[in-house]
Amino acid sequence: MNFGFLLFPDAEELDFIGPWEIIGMWGMHFNGPEKRLLISQDGAAVQCAKGLSVNPHCSFMDCPPLDFLLIPGGQGTRKEVNNQVLVDFVKQQATACKQILSVCTGAFILQAAGLLAHKRATTHWGSLDRLRKYPDVTVVEERFVRDGNIWTAAGVSAGIDLALALIASLASEEVAGKVQLAAEYYPSSRRYGYAPLSPGAPAYLNK
Amino acid sequence: MNFGFLLFPDAEELDFIGPWEIIGMWGMHFNGPEKRLLISQDGAAVQCAKGLSVNPHCSFMDCPPLDFLLIPGGQGTRKEVNNQVLVDFVKQQATACKQILSVCTGAFILQAAGLLAHKRATTHWGSLDRLRKYPDVTVVEERFVRDGNIWTAAGVSAGIDLALALIASLASEEVAGKVQLAAEYYPSSRRYGYAPLSPGAPAYLNK
Repeated sequence: MNFGFLLFPDAEELDFIGPWEIIGMWGMHFNGPEKRLLISQDGAAVQCAKGLSVNPHCSFMDCPPLDFLLIPGGQGTRKEVNNQVLVDFVKQQATACKQILSVCTGAFILQAAGLLAHKRATTHWGSLDRLRKYPDVTVVEERFVRDGNIWTAAGVSAGIDLALALIASLASEEVAGKVQLAAEYYPSSRRYGYAPLSPGAPAYLNK
Repeated sequence: MNFGFLLFPDAEELDFIGPWEIIGMWGMHFNGPEKRLLISQDGAAVQCAKGLSVNPHCSFMDCPPLDFLLIPGGQGTRKEVNNQVLVDFVKQQATACKQILSVCTGAFILQAAGLLAHKRATTHWGSLDRLRKYPDVTVVEERFVRDGNIWTAAGVSAGIDLALALIASLASEEVAGKVQLAAEYYPSSRRYGYAPLSPGAPAYLNK
């Protein structure tokens, strides 16, 4: 099985490395996907939104058919939704992909590739209203949401929760538990300051 | 202010990129440290534990004096605790650092540099017993612990909680809240399977 992670300039680091870590634990220690690949258009080093420089494993040209594809968000998505080569790559891979996932504003790349039509989906809280402008997308304010084989997560760190849910669904609850323990992902529930009470904060915070 | 992140072969990706994202949000949007640097011994690309290849910003030779230094864990720490050049780099930077942090088994590099003597500290749950072998370290099973200017976190994902606590301490609760909202770090509290009930699981899970 091949699990691909799309990379582009100004992708948000944690959007893809959170899931990368979780899927990597699964793949290396608990019989998850053997091949995990970071893929960029030309295969050259990519500068991410917070200044991290990453070397992809392959380009669009030499990327094998993917069983899973994850698309991160970040400021770079504003530009990439208009990059026809990237959007076509996503469209083409999606035809054979078992599951397609986005984190944060990566949802807008799924939208550009026509993959959110008549789907429930989410994105970073700051971009929910922007996603609501597409009348055929049903926007939900959840930590993540699955609709068929399309999974979308809320902002940045939500990709970690998404990745564990994917493992629970495809492998089992027990395998997801082992990966969670290996990554010691038992986060603090602490909410700092008044920010989570601000009007834009996502609705799932009040559940 | 310079915030350095130590890199070495087989460092665990999320150990340093979790904090990298949080400290990056702080630095770029909320008046946190202006300069955030990934530092490796020779400055060349580093292959991480789950297969990510990262290009550091500088080598030990051209690294400026750091105000903050974070040391990730990962399988690579087993080798690096015996790398005198790396241990000396940590020791030398630590003399002027305001705060020194480790995530996961990065604690063993702090130990090798003499920075955990007579301190309370923690590490990945799977390495707690190994850390207990140093009689001058008081091992605690918390998500993270601060003792003076030494901060240590539990495994892998715990570095995100550590980074937010650092910001709350150095800036304010409100600034930490704004960073938390920007990164949408309101994780699910879901615990999968029976893994968290296993005997090795860290004591803070039962609080």
